[in-house]
Amino acid sequence: MSRADRPIGVFDSGIGGLTVIHALRQLVPQEELIYLGDTARLPYGSKSHHTIERYTLQMGELLQRHDPKLIVIACNTASAHGLPALQAVSPCPVIGVIEPGAEAAASVPGPVGIIGTLATVGSAAYEAAIHRRDPAKVIHSVACPLLVPLAEEGWFDDPVTDSICRRYLNQLPYEVKTVVLGCTHYPTLLESLERSRPGTRWIDSGRVTAQAVDRLLQGRLGYRTAGARGSLRVQLTDASSRLKEVGSRFLEEELGDVEVVDI
Amino acid sequence: MSRADRPIGVFDSGIGGLTVIHALRQLVPQEELIYLGDTARLPYGSKSHHTIERYTLQMGELLQRHDPKLIVIACNTASAHGLPALQAVSPCPVIGVIEPGAEAAASVPGPVGIIGTLATVGSAAYEAAIHRRDPAKVIHSVACPLLVPLAEEGWFDDPVTDSICRRYLNQLPYEVKTVVLGCTHYPTLLESLERSRPGTRWIDSGRVTAQAVDRLLQGRLGYRTAGARGSLRVQLTDASSRLKEVGSRFLEEELGDVEVVDI
Repeated sequence: MSRADRPIGVFDSGIGGLTVIHALRQLVPQEELIYLGDTARLPYGSKSHHTIERYTLQMGELLQRHDPKLIVIACNTASAHGLPALQAVSPCPVIGVIEPGAEAAASVPGPVGIIGTLATVGSAAYEAAIHRRDPAKVIHSVACPLLVPLAEEGWFDDPVTDSICRRYLNQLPYEVKTVVLGCTHYPTLLESLERSRPGTRWIDSGRVTAQAVDRLLQGRLGYRTAGARGSLRVQLTDASSRLKEVGSRFLEEELGDVEVVDI
Repeated sequence: MSRADRPIGVFDSGIGGLTVIHALRQLVPQEELIYLGDTARLPYGSKSHHTIERYTLQMGELLQRHDPKLIVIACNTASAHGLPALQAVSPCPVIGVIEPGAEAAASVPGPVGIIGTLATVGSAAYEAAIHRRDPAKVIHSVACPLLVPLAEEGWFDDPVTDSICRRYLNQLPYEVKTVVLGCTHYPTLLESLERSRPGTRWIDSGRVTAQAVDRLLQGRLGYRTAGARGSLRVQLTDASSRLKEVGSRFLEEELGDVEVVDI
């Protein structure tokens, strides 16, 4: 098989990365995608650097079985803590969701906000990636530990979700008009976030990552030529019926058969 | 060392079981306690039966290194899914939190409510344990996935927590006057729960489990005789500074040195 026809491996700590799969399937529908979610050990967002790095390397190894042309870490926490370690050992290129999000944030005027899990915010990875591009950029970060469980509970059009979003977003100064959704779960809560802070420009790190993948394929990696619509194969380290239901919501299409991989 | 002087091993998926440690240190202060929290892989509450059982067996093996006289599974989810498997292989007795909670629930008149994680409620373990004692008992169960992250966020005296508690508890019929806190995190939310459903009698599965341990020690296992106050040793599979802070709140005393065990 030519390199361009090999699949793209996408991994996440759970099912939030399916929002990135959704963006990829819209932008590069011809590509074959392998999604690997470490649902047995999610969430990564509250774990330490050492553990997240170790788990990221294990997930990368599992994806290598499919001989991917590219690996996407569709998880902000794993990107923040595990990307350099995986890039150091992977035989194929690896990109995370933070660099594309930081690129987009650095290109808008004025101060920016970052919302994410405890581990993502604690890593200061967005700050570092934005300051590499614009050292003078003013950045405000807020950890929002309740947003992932709220998204998984599915309380999308809900006053409780609105008040929790408002409480977190009110920690950002008034001047912040651009906020990075630094967690792949958050796009599902976009309506609540918009109601809680109207007039904000939101940067969806998943969507800008799909655009970065597109640019890589346009360049040296090449687009798949073998068919009009690539398949999606989903592997999870643990599967419950509820996960599949929530997963379909994130993917915005029916989540078909799920394979379970023991870890 | 005589059997009575050996430690009691307590394990939980995370740090919620520290509320059981708190109850044990009040009731049987002379006992040596080893606490093992699987914080790298928490929460168990959203995982499948197979995975929870496998993790419970691994945790039991880690505790055997300390040659305990008794193992307490201080986690409702692991008790619901992993207790029989661990009892089948453990060289020492193993008790969970569900049987003591069910015993207390069966002994009160009228219908009872159970609140817990998705996995605990999905297992119907409380129903089975209560119906073994009283087949006619009317039981209503409600899964409350947001309560664990709320307790870990520490929003204890908070209108948002009150509305979430009210939303979950309102799913119980009016006639229910007794509710089992079927998750070791929930005692930290007791004030919110009380405000949300005044006049309810709450059964804290952790506290009744400490009483069950006391009865076992009174019987064949024996109380430790070697000292007035036993030590507490805490091992976690992953540790962050935040975990230690939240842990101290659950333990209601300073959480001292924490050892990290790789899994």
